[in-house]
Amino acid sequence: MIFELNRESHTPLYAQIAGQIRSMISGGALKIGDRIPANRELSKVLGVNRTTVNTAYQELFADGLIVSHVGRGTFISAIPSPPRPGRLGQSVAPAPIKWSIPLAPGKPDQWLCAMLHSLTKTDAVSLAYALPSPDLFPIEDFRRSVDRVLRREGARVVDCGHAAGYQPLRDYIASQASLSGRPVSPNQVLITNGCQQSLNLIRQVLVASGDEVVLETPTYSGALSVFCGYDSKYTCVPVGDRGMDLTLLEDALSQRRPRLIYTVPSFHNPTGVTMDLSSRRRLLELAAKYRVPIVEDDIYGDLRYDGPSLPSLRALDVHGVVIHISSFSKIGFPGIRVGWVIGDPALIDALTAAKRKNDLHTNLLSQASMYEFSRHGLLAKHIKRMKKAYAQRRDVMLSAMERYFPAEVGWTRPEGGMSIWVTLPDSVNASQILPESIEKGVIFSPGEHFHPSLSPANHMRIAFTTATPAAIEESIRRLGMLLKTRLTVLKKHRLGRGLDALRPLV
Amino acid sequence: MIFELNRESHTPLYAQIAGQIRSMISGGALKIGDRIPANRELSKVLGVNRTTVNTAYQELFADGLIVSHVGRGTFISAIPSPPRPGRLGQSVAPAPIKWSIPLAPGKPDQWLCAMLHSLTKTDAVSLAYALPSPDLFPIEDFRRSVDRVLRREGARVVDCGHAAGYQPLRDYIASQASLSGRPVSPNQVLITNGCQQSLNLIRQVLVASGDEVVLETPTYSGALSVFCGYDSKYTCVPVGDRGMDLTLLEDALSQRRPRLIYTVPSFHNPTGVTMDLSSRRRLLELAAKYRVPIVEDDIYGDLRYDGPSLPSLRALDVHGVVIHISSFSKIGFPGIRVGWVIGDPALIDALTAAKRKNDLHTNLLSQASMYEFSRHGLLAKHIKRMKKAYAQRRDVMLSAMERYFPAEVGWTRPEGGMSIWVTLPDSVNASQILPESIEKGVIFSPGEHFHPSLSPANHMRIAFTTATPAAIEESIRRLGMLLKTRLTVLKKHRLGRGLDALRPLV
Repeated sequence: MIFELNRESHTPLYAQIAGQIRSMISGGALKIGDRIPANRELSKVLGVNRTTVNTAYQELFADGLIVSHVGRGTFISAIPSPPRPGRLGQSVAPAPIKWSIPLAPGKPDQWLCAMLHSLTKTDAVSLAYALPSPDLFPIEDFRRSVDRVLRREGARVVDCGHAAGYQPLRDYIASQASLSGRPVSPNQVLITNGCQQSLNLIRQVLVASGDEVVLETPTYSGALSVFCGYDSKYTCVPVGDRGMDLTLLEDALSQRRPRLIYTVPSFHNPTGVTMDLSSRRRLLELAAKYRVPIVEDDIYGDLRYDGPSLPSLRALDVHGVVIHISSFSKIGFPGIRVGWVIGDPALIDALTAAKRKNDLHTNLLSQASMYEFSRHGLLAKHIKRMKKAYAQRRDVMLSAMERYFPAEVGWTRPEGGMSIWVTLPDSVNASQILPESIEKGVIFSPGEHFHPSLSPANHMRIAFTTATPAAIEESIRRLGMLLKTRLTVLKKHRLGRGLDALRPLV
Repeated sequence: MIFELNRESHTPLYAQIAGQIRSMISGGALKIGDRIPANRELSKVLGVNRTTVNTAYQELFADGLIVSHVGRGTFISAIPSPPRPGRLGQSVAPAPIKWSIPLAPGKPDQWLCAMLHSLTKTDAVSLAYALPSPDLFPIEDFRRSVDRVLRREGARVVDCGHAAGYQPLRDYIASQASLSGRPVSPNQVLITNGCQQSLNLIRQVLVASGDEVVLETPTYSGALSVFCGYDSKYTCVPVGDRGMDLTLLEDALSQRRPRLIYTVPSFHNPTGVTMDLSSRRRLLELAAKYRVPIVEDDIYGDLRYDGPSLPSLRALDVHGVVIHISSFSKIGFPGIRVGWVIGDPALIDALTAAKRKNDLHTNLLSQASMYEFSRHGLLAKHIKRMKKAYAQRRDVMLSAMERYFPAEVGWTRPEGGMSIWVTLPDSVNASQILPESIEKGVIFSPGEHFHPSLSPANHMRIAFTTATPAAIEESIRRLGMLLKTRLTVLKKHRLGRGLDALRPLV
């Protein structure tokens, strides 16, 4: 079996594998009863994730082309029927429509895709996702909240709702946000399906074709898919130890007319860095001076494990320049898809109109259930428990990194959030290490996925939230060994190249 | 109290009312302790819906500016604080950002807005919404399904999910769709937040700036907000007794290069009309000949009350030209926000990438709950019960229309779905009748909201699903009386104008 996989193609790898096996059967290279390699074998040969092969096989299985016999293996069981109706058309004219749709842009999209796809089980320990740990979910508390809501509210929570959100939840979010000292009224709150949708709605309302936005680099890959994927332009401002570089930001603001600044000031994704108080004040002044709104992504804001707590940009905003977004995805449950935007009432009205156009309104049962779960203090209790667990996991990770990582490697020490940003020597490409790392049982996120372009490649994001302390310890040990080996090889190689370079002179 | 309401403004009426009361307090025209008119009084005086005044009052109440005393009325309780921080800025420079955001386009948007807003309680009987009746919701069956899912699946159904949807639900929808005789594989199914989102994703993937689409007129107002709101163009093809006019469609297809045709072939919204079998076949041939995809909105497809059942366009599609969309909103629960797209795998891949960019994935708990509810036959049982009730309500409505509506009025007789389309004499403007109708206790949808432009104005959509048979009977009686009165007045007026026209000659 010879496969030609194109990793640059818009067609996912699993579809390429499935398609090529299908062709081998149609073409006669594979016959009914032929055994095909086990998942593990094929993934090794092709150098792809086992999930990928699994997905390809599942598709062939669903099409009835292969069968599995326990203990014997997987076999070809049918020949694909000639051109499938509704897909490849029938032999009569006219020809079928070709559904080859260009996807733009390739990279962040494919990364998100791969990320969400590989959430299915693998043997490896995942440090790849800045997500809450499902083993900490207070599922019984949540189940009871959902059940109470359905018993009490009945048909109302499954009936058509308002575009701006479930009113008791809007009231609750406004009252919680007002605790910061800067009052928020319920008409300043829009409920969305989470921060990803909030960013899309903000783009739809504020960013027209050709408009420019300011992004931090590195930044949340979902923001890249929103702001770099359409015909909007972007300026990148690097993130340092104290948050985004405000000197470079002022250059960008004074020289261009960006429509917004997107920032994650607290426990920044992916770096874990937090913007200090004086920088927050300065950022707000710059935004007010140049009249550019700030989109403050505060999704990790409640997950501080140590250090003095800092007000959000919204809480400091005397000029009315901040659009604040957050969600229950990190502090509660990501699968519930409930987030929110806090902003000026006129902006919220416009975003609500956009929300209505996009999908009418956010799931009412989820909103009502999260409200019920929150107002009875169960969310606060859950956050308290999570913070304790995540602080421990972060400490285990940092201490393991001290012990196992080579001296040439640097990393951040986040006071909260979910991830650590690792800087490798310039010569090391994190994406190139990943397959070997997965082979050793550790998945991480290569840093390039948090940049709009492929460089720089010498970073990785490792999240400390989803693995147990023991698994973190072991993963970091393995990753450290791998990095040491790789650095040794590179040094030898460089030495070798050095000799090569000398050779002509010899 | 003198109000200046601008019904053309992008600022909603309730916000105008609240803003003007706020100004009256700031300006001293209203003082602390002053009584303001009751909701009912003010709505009558201003000629606006009581919900509108209620929303305005709620906002003032939330801001602490008014209080209500049971049995005494509503009073001014505070003076608005000088320019609110974060909104109007503080007295220090720089000035706050002006959040006056233009909304485009005005009409369908505002209509949807008003529609969803007025879902809050009023005294009037609503025949305005093509929605399932909450009093028929099998909420106890659904509650048990949700509870079973949370007990059995636990953390998995609130954890991060796949962009394409919850796999068991994709499998289930594929298997149900395959019962039509044309097989669907799970990779041809994308789960969305409902048809509104499906339409948006399809637009994002298939329709570029400046591209043209073909719409039926009249059509679903949510589709107008998707396809007429951006810089795409549209061609309108009228709907007749047998569905869209295929001669005019062919003209459009041969003269232009539209990117898609959007149609509701079964129990069309708003007309209730169903496209017959030979027209379905002809439509598919035209789409294949001109290589233009058909978006088949089959959201009412399962709600047939009489007449022979017809295959969907998808089931008849030998050329692979159909993108099929549907949801649980009409047959199950609209607040749950779960719908789906069935299409070519390559298209589904592209739509899945768009879905991921838009909001990562659809709420997992809702998907798993609807799957659980469906696979145990509870959805089928609910549909059976609903069909019986809706058929009865439709019959009560049609028979009341025969008895109470003036002879000049015509209407459709749908074999399924949720609404009847009423054609008034050309001289009657349905929107102008609406306020009086609401006054008489009956809400309907003026026909112009289902057209991309304001004309023609002599139609109304009346839905027979959400009111009880007794309420339907009484509402139609009142609406009939109102129409008779209005027609008599118009005849006298025309007669008067006729005499006026003669006067110069006398």
